[in-house]
Amino acid sequence: MVRSLCLSGLLLFVLLMIGRTNRLNLAAATSPQDATSQAAIRAILQSQQEAWNRADIETFMAGYWKSERTEFVGSDGIIRGWQAVLDRYKKSYPNKAAMGRLTFFGLEITMLSSDSAYILGKWHLEREKDHPGGVFTLIAKKFPEGWRIIHDHTSAFATQPAGGQ
Amino acid sequence: MVRSLCLSGLLLFVLLMIGRTNRLNLAAATSPQDATSQAAIRAILQSQQEAWNRADIETFMAGYWKSERTEFVGSDGIIRGWQAVLDRYKKSYPNKAAMGRLTFFGLEITMLSSDSAYILGKWHLEREKDHPGGVFTLIAKKFPEGWRIIHDHTSAFATQPAGGQ
Repeated sequence: MVRSLCLSGLLLFVLLMIGRTNRLNLAAATSPQDATSQAAIRAILQSQQEAWNRADIETFMAGYWKSERTEFVGSDGIIRGWQAVLDRYKKSYPNKAAMGRLTFFGLEITMLSSDSAYILGKWHLEREKDHPGGVFTLIAKKFPEGWRIIHDHTSAFATQPAGGQ
Repeated sequence: MVRSLCLSGLLLFVLLMIGRTNRLNLAAATSPQDATSQAAIRAILQSQQEAWNRADIETFMAGYWKSERTEFVGSDGIIRGWQAVLDRYKKSYPNKAAMGRLTFFGLEITMLSSDSAYILGKWHLEREKDHPGGVFTLIAKKFPEGWRIIHDHTSAFATQPAGGQ
């Protein structure tokens, strides 16, 4: 009886530890629901990259939550609101030459809950005169209309001249 | 009867719209549980600031998730793992003069779920030779041991000389 109780206790302890490990292991995003969410988020970023590369900033902006509370943090501080983010993109990238050819790569999507996630990724712009690039952290939330970026913190590394690495 | 049905329909519509608004309004963090979480997150940052200002980097680091998966994104790219983040801080800020006097301000905490949140805030270092500062995005997760930062993306603005604004 005592032995049986001990074994039960041990089993309970092991089960609790397994539960704890899963909880801490944020990356274990292998549930079908999480896989679907991650695929949807990847599709948003893919669509953004394609829109950018045909100089279609409006479609690029469709990846962001259309709200006054959407935030973009860049080299010039905090920009608040979807419209202000659009205006900043248009001002910083006035034409196709300035927009260059964008590539997102090294995307790592971490689910924070069933309807929120963050994305760590890298960006690279291929332009005639330089090759800027850097790292971004995006926070995405699932809305009735789909996943949208609610917060974007983008950093640029030192700009590299064309031909440099 | 028809009128009563119409009124019921209108009431249902209004209730649905209220529900939808609350769902989209990510900042409406007024549940007692969210208020407790936000206070706990603020306490972590307050503790980090105080630890930094007595040159106690180890206690400062207690705010981060002690995991190989903790990420820090700074001017030199992505640093992975709690230990590597600690090493970077120690290297970048080797002594009290380099650490200066840190202030976190303008903190905005947005709950993403009951156990995840992101924090948008600003930082400022008061040092003898310069006054660096910038913006950070933190992602925090609630663990059995409390709230911890799992991802830190910190940007620095152009360094300002002492006495400048």
